[in-house]
This record gives sequence, structure tokens and C-alpha cells, in this order.
Amino acid sequence: VTRQTPGSPARTRSGPDIDLGLLPELMGYMLRQAQITMFQDFHATFTEMGIRPVHFAVLEVLHRNPGLRQAQAGEALGIKAANLVPLLNDLQARGFVRRDAVAGDRRSYALHLTVEGAAQLKRLQALVATHERRFAARLGPGGREQLLALLQRLTSEGSEGQAHLAMSLTARRTA
Amino acid sequence: VTRQTPGSPARTRSGPDIDLGLLPELMGYMLRQAQITMFQDFHATFTEMGIRPVHFAVLEVLHRNPGLRQAQAGEALGIKAANLVPLLNDLQARGFVRRDAVAGDRRSYALHLTVEGAAQLKRLQALVATHERRFAARLGPGGREQLLALLQRLTSEGSEGQAHLAMSLTARRTA
Repeated sequence: VTRQTPGSPARTRSGPDIDLGLLPELMGYMLRQAQITMFQDFHATFTEMGIRPVHFAVLEVLHRNPGLRQAQAGEALGIKAANLVPLLNDLQARGFVRRDAVAGDRRSYALHLTVEGAAQLKRLQALVATHERRFAARLGPGGREQLLALLQRLTSEGSEGQAHLAMSLTARRTA
Repeated sequence: VTRQTPGSPARTRSGPDIDLGLLPELMGYMLRQAQITMFQDFHATFTEMGIRPVHFAVLEVLHRNPGLRQAQAGEALGIKAANLVPLLNDLQARGFVRRDAVAGDRRSYALHLTVEGAAQLKRLQALVATHERRFAARLGPGGREQLLALLQRLTSEGSEGQAHLAMSLTARRTA
């Protein structure tokens, strides 16, 4: 199953006669390639279970934050209500998620994993760990930790002020 | 302009009371966060010009490979024909790209940048370089090169067989 998404790395490498110019030197382009590569592998692993990365993220967050309100879940994961509602409908229809009415607030729901949802998450966590290890192996010893630290710094706001801290942390990590 | 996309990092950090569980330890999740962060900055930089990352990628590849066929461009960048055709229509309408008929092949077009397209690409390249440097600064000295090398290894196929090579390359790079 080859999904052809913008910048699919498999396609990129299949045309060695085409010069990609500056693209492979740009972090944004390479992040997109790497993200597509990992998501495609995720899809290949979970496609039979009908689970997308966002499903896993929602189940994981509900597991860690029982009773979370719908709006909070959306905010924490950056999912718009218009996308979250059908996603939760889907997870509820599959018996993984329960929406409880909130006393005194008709417009809000408290979200919980069901027993079945918790069991499903446990299975998914094991598969996700395997998927993660498979890619970590490509990076060699310490590579995954190095990558996570770099990605964390890239997404940090106000990182100018924290640059020294971040650099000293890395220096310690890679030492 | 805050686009709320799944896993938007700004949202993630705005809810410090919500436990994201395993997610920040997963490369796929963090790659997505970092990619969204960089693409949002890209959008903020180029929104007035109506340029998305994929526009830049197409212009860059056409600049490097004049006369490229539409199918080749799609393959190199992993863009489906159904998405590439309107994209090229757009770039053609704006006077940046020219489609030339190919003798003996009615179904194919040879793609070229126009003079205006080349000038536009030059302006974009300068802006992209600024955008890249801004994020490189977050990573400290050598961080960008380290990140690009890790991403390259993550997207490499058959990396099991190349693991030793990759590791020795890194050892040299980080030494």
C-alpha cells in the first residue's frame, strides 16, 4: 500500500536522475519526509485495526486524563472540534470511548476509556513500541534520544532565550 | 494565523495540566509536531505570496530539471496527478511555469520555469534560507546538520543493511 503523498520519500529516491536541488538540505522538507515514512509504517501496522495515529493519540490522552472534556482533548492535541467529534463518534461506536454528561453543563462531555478501550490501547502501545524500536534501530545507539531532543528544541517557543539551556542539556546528553 | 492541525504543538504546550503520556517520547508524534511548527512558520512567511511548501518544491525541482515531464515531477515529489495538475494550473496561471507540448507524445508535457518563475524562485529561496536559519538557531551549533543526518537515516530504505555505514558516518560527524 503506497500512499502517494506530497514528498513521499520512496518516490523521491526512486528517481535518482532527478535533482531535488535545495530540498534535501531543508529541515522542513526532510521532517515531512521522515514523518510520512513513519506514518506510512504506522498505517501499515494498524490498517487492519482501523487505527490512525490520531486515534492512538486520543486513546493515550484519555487514558492519562480520565474525565477530560472534549474541548480540552481537542486543545491538548490540536484537533478542531469539527474533526474531533466524528473521531470520538467513531471511537464510541467501536466501544472504546464513553461520553458522560457533565452535571450543570449541557454542552460539555467528560470522556473516558471503556474497559475495552483500555485493553485496546494496551495492545496498541505494544505495537507502537515495536514500530518505534524498528525506526530507532535505523538511527544507531543514542540516535533516537538525540532526535527527540532536537525535535523538542525545534518546537519550543521562545527558544532564543532558552538556547543556552538547551545547548548545555544536549552537551550533557551527547557527552 | 493559528491553523489548528492534529497535534499542533502550540496547543500541546498550552495545556500544562494535561498529561500527553507516551506521545512526546514517540518519534512519529514529535516529527509531526516539528513539521507542523516549521510549516506554520513557512505559511506565515509566504501567505501573502500565496505560496505553500509544495509550490516551492515544484518550482525548485523545475529549476533544477528543465523540461521535466509532468509524470516525472509528480513521481520525484510524491504528488499524485490529481493534485499536481491543479497545482501546475495555478503556477501556470501566475506566469511562473510553462507547459510545452512534447513531439510524438500528446499526453505528456515538458515543464519549464518562465523568466518570471525563475525570478520568483530566487526571491523564495532567499526567504526560505531565512526561515531555515531561524530554526537552525534553535538547535545550536551543528544541530541542523545533526538533525538532517538523523532524518536522512530515518527515511533510508534497507537501513538495516546500511546500519553500520550510517553509524560510522555519524561517529565521524559527531566526533
